[in-house]
Amino acid sequence: MIRLSLDLYRERRDRLISFMKKERIRIGLVTSPTNVAYLTGFACNPHERFLALALDSANRAEKLFVPLLDATAAQEAAPGLAIVPISDVDDAYALLGGHMPAPGVDSIGVEKGAVSLAKAERLQTVYSGAVFADLEQSILDMRIVKSADEIGRIQRAVDIVEAVMAHAVSQVRIGMTELALAAEIERKMRELGADRPAFETIVLTGPRSALPHGVPGQHEIRKGDFLLIDIGVQADGYCSDITRTFVVGEASKAQRDIYEAVLAANEAGIAASAAGVPVSAVDGAARETIEKAGFGPLFTHRVGHGFGMDIHEQPSMSGASGTPLAPGMVFTVEPGVYDSVVGGVRIEDDVYIMDDGKAGVLTRFPKQLTVISAKDH
Amino acid sequence: MIRLSLDLYRERRDRLISFMKKERIRIGLVTSPTNVAYLTGFACNPHERFLALALDSANRAEKLFVPLLDATAAQEAAPGLAIVPISDVDDAYALLGGHMPAPGVDSIGVEKGAVSLAKAERLQTVYSGAVFADLEQSILDMRIVKSADEIGRIQRAVDIVEAVMAHAVSQVRIGMTELALAAEIERKMRELGADRPAFETIVLTGPRSALPHGVPGQHEIRKGDFLLIDIGVQADGYCSDITRTFVVGEASKAQRDIYEAVLAANEAGIAASAAGVPVSAVDGAARETIEKAGFGPLFTHRVGHGFGMDIHEQPSMSGASGTPLAPGMVFTVEPGVYDSVVGGVRIEDDVYIMDDGKAGVLTRFPKQLTVISAKDH
Repeated sequence: MIRLSLDLYRERRDRLISFMKKERIRIGLVTSPTNVAYLTGFACNPHERFLALALDSANRAEKLFVPLLDATAAQEAAPGLAIVPISDVDDAYALLGGHMPAPGVDSIGVEKGAVSLAKAERLQTVYSGAVFADLEQSILDMRIVKSADEIGRIQRAVDIVEAVMAHAVSQVRIGMTELALAAEIERKMRELGADRPAFETIVLTGPRSALPHGVPGQHEIRKGDFLLIDIGVQADGYCSDITRTFVVGEASKAQRDIYEAVLAANEAGIAASAAGVPVSAVDGAARETIEKAGFGPLFTHRVGHGFGMDIHEQPSMSGASGTPLAPGMVFTVEPGVYDSVVGGVRIEDDVYIMDDGKAGVLTRFPKQLTVISAKDH
Repeated sequence: MIRLSLDLYRERRDRLISFMKKERIRIGLVTSPTNVAYLTGFACNPHERFLALALDSANRAEKLFVPLLDATAAQEAAPGLAIVPISDVDDAYALLGGHMPAPGVDSIGVEKGAVSLAKAERLQTVYSGAVFADLEQSILDMRIVKSADEIGRIQRAVDIVEAVMAHAVSQVRIGMTELALAAEIERKMRELGADRPAFETIVLTGPRSALPHGVPGQHEIRKGDFLLIDIGVQADGYCSDITRTFVVGEASKAQRDIYEAVLAANEAGIAASAAGVPVSAVDGAARETIEKAGFGPLFTHRVGHGFGMDIHEQPSMSGASGTPLAPGMVFTVEPGVYDSVVGGVRIEDDVYIMDDGKAGVLTRFPKQLTVISAKDH
């Protein structure tokens, strides 16, 4: 197993080096912790300390610069790589120039969206005269297609969050606050082995479920209200993301109408997902369903987003994107309708494209309208 | 109250504009959400969307560019400021150039450590020919000195986390895992009104308490073990940070020796803290105490760090820093001794320099050696 994994990281770095050669980028520096983990197997949070995977495409030198405290862990996680530990009194940039000399280098590859201007200026003092080229898109292009191992890890993160969702439903009481339920949800995530929530846990009740940027507050769950729960966990480096919307006590006709429209849109979006189909068609299928039900103007966001190591990755599931879906892509399908009086409904599943080109659904939590017959607090 | 606060934000922006004038920086762009909140009162998480406070020092124009979804909230939080909403189909950089024209501008001020190289390159297309100057240090220089209002908010975050610490102690059972206690701690944080943990909750037991980068795992609390709890919350925009180390069941002589040395160092560090004293003297006082007890090599980190809106701010409480302490500075004093066999002890308090130059201690949780007489799980 370990050997397989090492081959995988080796292969990812080889692809990046091939890209660098093609683009005539001599030195490459990967500094975002997530991309370093993706390319080496070594995951860490360096905080303000220096972390970089340095690649020299001319001589295939590869060195991993890590904080001294993390050197042992790095060596264990990435046994094939040369590790350069950096203590708090070292000058990381001087060490970099010493270990990866490249006199007269033309081009340094960095993650342009992740590296700060301050760090870029320091790098230009090390490799004077060099201009910056972008490595980030090349890495994201790799990350957009997940391996079987990655799909497996995402499935485990989904399994955890679905068990948390079931627990949350069992805990609902009339009079309970959004915050109290959110706290219990996050406690359960930890108990079930999640490393952390994948994003800030969303629990919204009543008309507040229609707030696009709502956060849980001291609002109490009341009979007849919508209860929207949008949660995800990160476990073993990978994320999950699910939304279910429930009704507490009893559902009105207006609530049922919105719910059925969103559920049909969720199913239409999933049904439209397949290899070769442009992302816009998934958004379009969901949107058309909601428009036909008369709620078009109340579906105010894209139908979903890719995810994996990060909770938001490519592809963006937007109506404006012609990106074709391909095997290994993982994304959410999460249409919603937000009525400021009745409340909002969103139903979100995690979907991937299988090797045969069809869509597989990682989430299995029931999605027919569920009325929670909650007891008093 | 609101009027007072608005004056405060106004005054902070005036100070930044004065700095820009002095440094001949025509256009300033503040894009880190925390600094935008510090300068305007408007706190938001724009995720990948564009957020910027734009300042023109020539004509004192000030405009706050925010995601469309946040425009109403921004107007309410910063009523004196011109708000420019940006929809998902707008080109934020074109809008910026249109609203803040500065033909022939020499110098754009940005937060060099926060702005990405990609964003910097986009800005150079808007203000062609301009070079970048740093605004970040100037803002951090303001943030290092907290106002009375800020000290009050930090005290409230401390009060919450101390109530959580007391709850955690009451929940300890033999056989309970680190993760289970961490989960219960984070649930209680939410229940008591914290917005979120200020950092990843640390619960370490036995020899694991000596791990410098340890995270809670499936390790069980056992009789005779150290139990190290390092927690903080963010509430109302400000952080707290406290560590206490307990012994479960009964304490050995070796444990008591380490504990007493760390406690004496914690007290020596606080006693050394006063306006005009260099930061290095605080580190030195704590370190000398531990060295005299014979544990010098096992105190492997700086004595503390400043904090406020962020959990790590200036001043860094390092032995290498000559920065003099001044009224309004807030920082931790947290010496530790880490023995790989006996375990680690860290005792962390939150300290500020009062107007009279003396040190005030915000944390009040008892710190004499406490043996938790835990029951079985």
